[in-house]
This record gives sequence, C-alpha cells and structure tokens, in this order.
Amino acid sequence: MTTSGGQETGRIETFSDGVFAIAITLLIIEIGVPHVEEAGSLSGKLVELWPSYLGYAMSFVVIGTVWANHHNRFRLISRSDHILLFLNVLFLMCVAFLPFPTALLAEYIREEEHRITAVAVYSGTLAVTAVFFTLLWLYAATNYRLVDRSIDPSLLRAMTRRYVLGMLLYALAFALAFVSPVASLALIVILALLFVLPEPEGQRGTRRRSLRG
Amino acid sequence: MTTSGGQETGRIETFSDGVFAIAITLLIIEIGVPHVEEAGSLSGKLVELWPSYLGYAMSFVVIGTVWANHHNRFRLISRSDHILLFLNVLFLMCVAFLPFPTALLAEYIREEEHRITAVAVYSGTLAVTAVFFTLLWLYAATNYRLVDRSIDPSLLRAMTRRYVLGMLLYALAFALAFVSPVASLALIVILALLFVLPEPEGQRGTRRRSLRG
Amino acid sequence: MTTSGGQETGRIETFSDGVFAIAITLLIIEIGVPHVEEAGSLSGKLVELWPSYLGYAMSFVVIGTVWANHHNRFRLISRSDHILLFLNVLFLMCVAFLPFPTALLAEYIREEEHRITAVAVYSGTLAVTAVFFTLLWLYAATNYRLVDRSIDPSLLRAMTRRYVLGMLLYALAFALAFVSPVASLALIVILALLFVLPEPEGQRGTRRRSLRG
Amino acid sequence: MTTSGGQETGRIETFSDGVFAIAITLLIIEIGVPHVEEAGSLSGKLVELWPSYLGYAMSFVVIGTVWANHHNRFRLISRSDHILLFLNVLFLMCVAFLPFPTALLAEYIREEEHRITAVAVYSGTLAVTAVFFTLLWLYAATNYRLVDRSIDPSLLRAMTRRYVLGMLLYALAFALAFVSPVASLALIVILALLFVLPEPEGQRGTRRRSLRG
Repeated sequence: MTTSGGQETGRIETFSDGVFAIAITLLIIEIGVPHVEEAGSLSGKLVELWPSYLGYAMSFVVIGTVWANHHNRFRLISRSDHILLFLNVLFLMCVAFLPFPTALLAEYIREEEHRITAVAVYSGTLAVTAVFFTLLWLYAATNYRLVDRSIDPSLLRAMTRRYVLGMLLYALAFALAFVSPVASLALIVILALLFVLPEPEGQRGTRRRSLRG
Repeated sequence: MTTSGGQETGRIETFSDGVFAIAITLLIIEIGVPHVEEAGSLSGKLVELWPSYLGYAMSFVVIGTVWANHHNRFRLISRSDHILLFLNVLFLMCVAFLPFPTALLAEYIREEEHRITAVAVYSGTLAVTAVFFTLLWLYAATNYRLVDRSIDPSLLRAMTRRYVLGMLLYALAFALAFVSPVASLALIVILALLFVLPEPEGQRGTRRRSLRG
Repeated sequence: MTTSGGQETGRIETFSDGVFAIAITLLIIEIGVPHVEEAGSLSGKLVELWPSYLGYAMSFVVIGTVWANHHNRFRLISRSDHILLFLNVLFLMCVAFLPFPTALLAEYIREEEHRITAVAVYSGTLAVTAVFFTLLWLYAATNYRLVDRSIDPSLLRAMTRRYVLGMLLYALAFALAFVSPVASLALIVILALLFVLPEPEGQRGTRRRSLRG
Repeated sequence: MTTSGGQETGRIETFSDGVFAIAITLLIIEIGVPHVEEAGSLSGKLVELWPSYLGYAMSFVVIGTVWANHHNRFRLISRSDHILLFLNVLFLMCVAFLPFPTALLAEYIREEEHRITAVAVYSGTLAVTAVFFTLLWLYAATNYRLVDRSIDPSLLRAMTRRYVLGMLLYALAFALAFVSPVASLALIVILALLFVLPEPEGQRGTRRRSLRG
C-alpha cells in the first residue's frame, strides 16, 4: 500500500468489497417461495417466477462487473482523502440500492402499463451509479491527485474516456427505457458483458490501446 | 500492527468493518416494493415512498461517516484489551440497530402525531452511538492506554474535544426532535456532512489545528 | 501465519469473522416496525417491543463474546486441516442459527405458557454452540495437533478447563430454563459479561492463573 | 501473492469469501418464527418446522464445503484474468441462489405432489454450481494458464478428475430426484461429508493418490 501524502486505500477497498458482496447476495431474498393453491402445480408457479430469476441474474452480473471495475480502479488509486471517501460512500449508496429496482423490475416487467416505469428506475439507478463512479475517478485522477504518479498519462486519459463513455451509455439505456424497455435491458446486459474484454490498464505504466481504440 | 503490551487491533477492525458494511447494506431491505391497485400508477406509488429514500440516504451517509471515523480512530489505537473489545461491541450494537429507527422514520415521518416519536428514536440512537464512541476513545486514549505513544498529546486532546462536542451535538439533535423534528434531522445531516472536512489527525505526531480551531 | 505441516488458518478466520459479523447484524431485521392503529400511540407500541430490544442486546453481546473467544482461540491455533474446517463449519452453523431463537424469545417471553419453550430453545442453542466450540478446541489442542508448539502445556489445560466449564454452565442454563426461565437468561447474561475479565492466555508461553484459579 | 503475467487473486478470494459467508448466514432468515393459535403448543409448532432445520443444516454444510473447496482451489490458482473473474461471478451467482431452493425444499418436502419438484430444483442448483466450478478450474488449469507452474501435472489431473466426477455425481443427484427424492438428498449429504476426507492437493508439488485412487 502506497501512502505517500495521504491515507492508504486498503480499508476503503475492504469496506467496499463488503458492501458489494452483501448487496449481490441480498438479491436472492427478494425472491419469495411461491405458494401453490389446491390442485396447482409447483413447477408452473416456479416457471412464472422467471422475471425474478432474470432480474437476479442481471443484477448479479451487473454488480459483479461494477465490483471488478471498482477493484481494478483502486489498483491505480494509491492514496485516499476525505473527499474520495465521501464520493465512495455515495457510489456505494447506489450499488446497495440495486436490490430495490431489481425487485421492482421482477414484479412489474410483465405488466405492460408499469413496465416503462420499472425499467426506467432500474436503468436510471445504474446511470446514477455510473455518474458517481466517474466523479470518483475524475477526482482521483485529475492532476494525479490520488493515483500512482508512475502511471502513463495516456492510460489515465483512456480510463477517463472509458468511464465517461460508460456513463453516457447508461444514460442512453435510461432514455431507451421510455421508447423500448426491452432494448434498454438488452443494452445493460451488453454493457456488463463487455467487461469480459480486457481493460486498457492491464499493464501499469505502459501505453496501451484503450477499449475504444 | 503494533502489539506491544496488548492484542493487535487488526481483527477488531475487520469484524467492525463487516458489521458496518452489513448494517449499511441492510438498509435497502426496509424499502418494500409498492403494490399498485387497479388503475393506479406505479410512478405515483414510487414517489410516495420518498420518506424511505430519504431515510435510506441519510442513514447510509451517517453510517458511512461513522465508519470512516471509526476507521481513522483505529489508526491511532494500536493495542487492544478486553474492555476495548467490549466497548466496541456495545458501539457496534448501536450501529447495527440503525436500520430499525431508519424504517421507523420512513414509516412515520408524514404522520404528524407520530413524527416526534420517530425522529426522537432516530436521533436518540445516534446520540447513544456517539456516547459509546466517545467512551471507547476515552478508554483508549487516557494516559496513552492503548494508543500509539508517539502521538502528540495535543492531538489526543483535539480528538477528545471533537468527540465530546459531537456527542453533545447529537444530544442536541435528540432534544431538538421534541421542538422541531425537521431541525433535528437537518442537524444530523449537517453533522454527517461536516465529515468531508479534514480531521485534525491527518498527520501523525504533528500538532495541527483541530476542527474547532 | 504458521503453516508447518498443515494449512494456514487465515482464511478460516476471515470466513468465520464474516459469518459472525452477518449473524450479529441480521439480528435487527427480526424487529419489525410496529403498526399503530387509529388513536393509538407510537411510543406505547415501541415500549411494548421491549422483549425484542432485550433479545437483540442479549444476542448481540453473546455473539460478540463468542466471536472474541473464537478470535482469541485462533491466535493459539496455528495450523488447520479438514476436520478442523468441518468442526468450525458446524460451530458456525450454531452461531448463524441464533437469530431464530432470538426472534422466538422476543415473540414468546411474555406469554407464560410458551416462555419455558422459548427460553429452552435459546439456551439450548447456546449450549450446543458451546459443545462444538469445545470439540473444536479439544481437537486442535490434544497432543498439540494444531496449536503452536511453543505454548505452555498448562495454558492449554487452563483453556480446556475453561471451555468444559463454559459448556457445563450453558448446559445448566438450559436445564434452568425448565425451572426458572428468568434465572436461565440471567445466567446467560452473566456468562457473557464474565468475558470482560482477562483470559488466561493473555501472554503466550507463560504459565498464568486460569479464570478458575 | 504471485502476480506474474496476470492480476493477483487476493481480492477475488476476499469478495468470494464475503458472498459465501453472507449466503450461508442468510439461510436462517428463511425460517420464520411460528405463530401459535389459541390452546396450541409452541413446542409442537417448533417440531413441525423440522424440514426448515434440515434444509438449514444441509445447505449450511453444503455451502461450507463448497467454500472450503473454492478456498483450496485458489491456493493453486496464482493469477487471475477477466475470464476467470467472470466465471467466478457466475459460480458465485449459483452459490448465492441456494437460500431460495433451500426455502423451497423446507416448504414442500412434506407435500408428496410437490416433493419431486422441490428436490429437483435443489439438486439441480447444486449441479449447475458444480458445472461452473469445474469450468472455472478447467479454465485456470488448462496449460497452466493461471495456476502455479511449480505444481505437479499429475496433481492438476487428479483435481480435474475430482471435479468432473463431482459434477457427474451432482447431475446424478438431480436425476435421482425424479426417481427417489430421498435418495437424491442422501447423495447430496454424502457428497458434502466426503469433504472431510483429505484432498489430493494436501502437499503441493508432490504426486499423491487422488480421491478416486
């Protein structure tokens, strides 16, 4: 842990990891055991719960991806201060909020008159999360405020472009919700899966191609 | 980890971090998905939940701030004993209790006849939390019992003043609840936001200006 | 971490700490926000919840104490194997079960016909927890199987006496539940508070007076 | 932590440990406090809850065992990349899902017409979990992609055989559910208890007998 001129970031990461791990695991308690009436079939009831499984899987992958991004980012951020701590708390507040829009999505995705609202709340929460993540990064990276000084400036710029782009794409997912809820959700899934591609920061201190070229 | 003459503090911090992370993330499960009746609007129902969002955001920031204070304090506390462990358990008992008064606040803030009770329970819980935090600090810092001996005595005194003052201000928030619940909550938010200001202990072993000058 | 001839214990401790932290923090979700009927008083309803607060505080202190004991024990246990892992899982299974008897206690302590059952389940769970803790210790300590070989044998014997005694006292609390539920609970509180006294193992490798002299 | 040519695995393990610890501890909140009607007996009601205790104990031991396997595996995996992170998220998604089939099992095991469905969902979830665990291992171990290069190739092969076999046995448990739900659950318990036997990887870099000889 580098601590030159600031606090170390180890315990922020531990605390954030805890919040991520709990938020991701709490998703399951939103899925209640179905009650079967007389002469009903349990398997039928379980199949009807598909929006809950979908919401669970989607939010699990999204939170997992956001965790991995946060984790990778803090490998570049080597110092901490009160503002960073505070921005991180606001960011975690959005992450920990996700079980609520996930449950909302599972409850209302099948009802046409409420689908837009549910998807907009879901994608809107992700867009706000992306805003705080970008703010946190911009605060840390501007003028090498809290990042390791040995990092190539072009890498920092590539990261910034990546996060600003991500933020705009989540904002697009939010806007799409009002036109086509399904397209909005599809975009969110694609954004999460894009994470499987390697990040530009794979090697510290070397100029590399960013995700966007 | 310094262990001279006592137990190390690492696992207390890990355990406390776990409790903080869980308490802060559990806040969301108090917000239930609204049920829309025939011809009702989901967005209307979601807007009606504003006290829940407010309670969530307020308690999230408060717990985040308390966590950061606890974290910073244990950077000065380098040894541990049974009494410290016990005081820390009592302190965590207050922190982990917060989801309950938060849910109470969200449920009753709009009902005039119950508002004072809800806000008093909320601010009272914070006041008791502050009392235990101050006791924990006083126990550790008095005669350098468990803090690092290289720390400037004026820094310890500045910390003590800070916590006693914080305790009094939370007690004031509790008293204010009976006069003006809104003022009580405003004071709590201000106290949390004050945390963004740097703490006096930024540099170990150097005399620095305390928050109160 | 000592790993001579076995696996290191670090990740067992981390995992166990996680389970302790979650079990202790989950206690609060068993306390539901009361619903006030027309013309009722919220403060009256909150006062009626006293068994819930009592159960919360008691289980919080008990789990906190058990955590501290577990923590102290793993400072002597320096190696691990499959049997220890398994005994530890069974021990954690009892710890994580505690929110259930706690909720049971809070629900039924005021109803005379159910009080004995509720207290017996509560104290019985603690007794079984103590059995597994003692088994875990006996397995690790017998013939220095998994403990640090530099520890004085008299210290190991003192620890064993302490845990066997604790187990018997929790068994007594269970038996007492059928005679006097209140005496049973009082004994449990006393046992938890005894923890504030220093343990014999304060200094490694030195013969010291055990709790029982 | 070895980081040659990849990311370190420490934070993956911490995050995974968090998810395991939370999933295992959340099992208890699926057991609700029973409500006793007039003239009813609390102890009778508590005895009726036996499927809940059984499900709790079974899932606790299963998750504990899976955790220990995951833990042991990451002692061989010394590097990480985006694909491993993603496979690990999918694997954790199955682990964190377990409280749901556990609650399902507890609710429906006594109803003959729903028993097969409940047991099939439970064993099916475990089979899918085993598939992802095996994929994760195959990805890491093939051509020493992410495992420590000093490990004996026969040990890697023994591990692979072990996981493929485990996967097939969980698939068998799933198939058995449709023939005899009780046999399916018995097989699951046996598979978990087998873990108490030492793993082939006990000593790194030495050729040892695998579980299957």
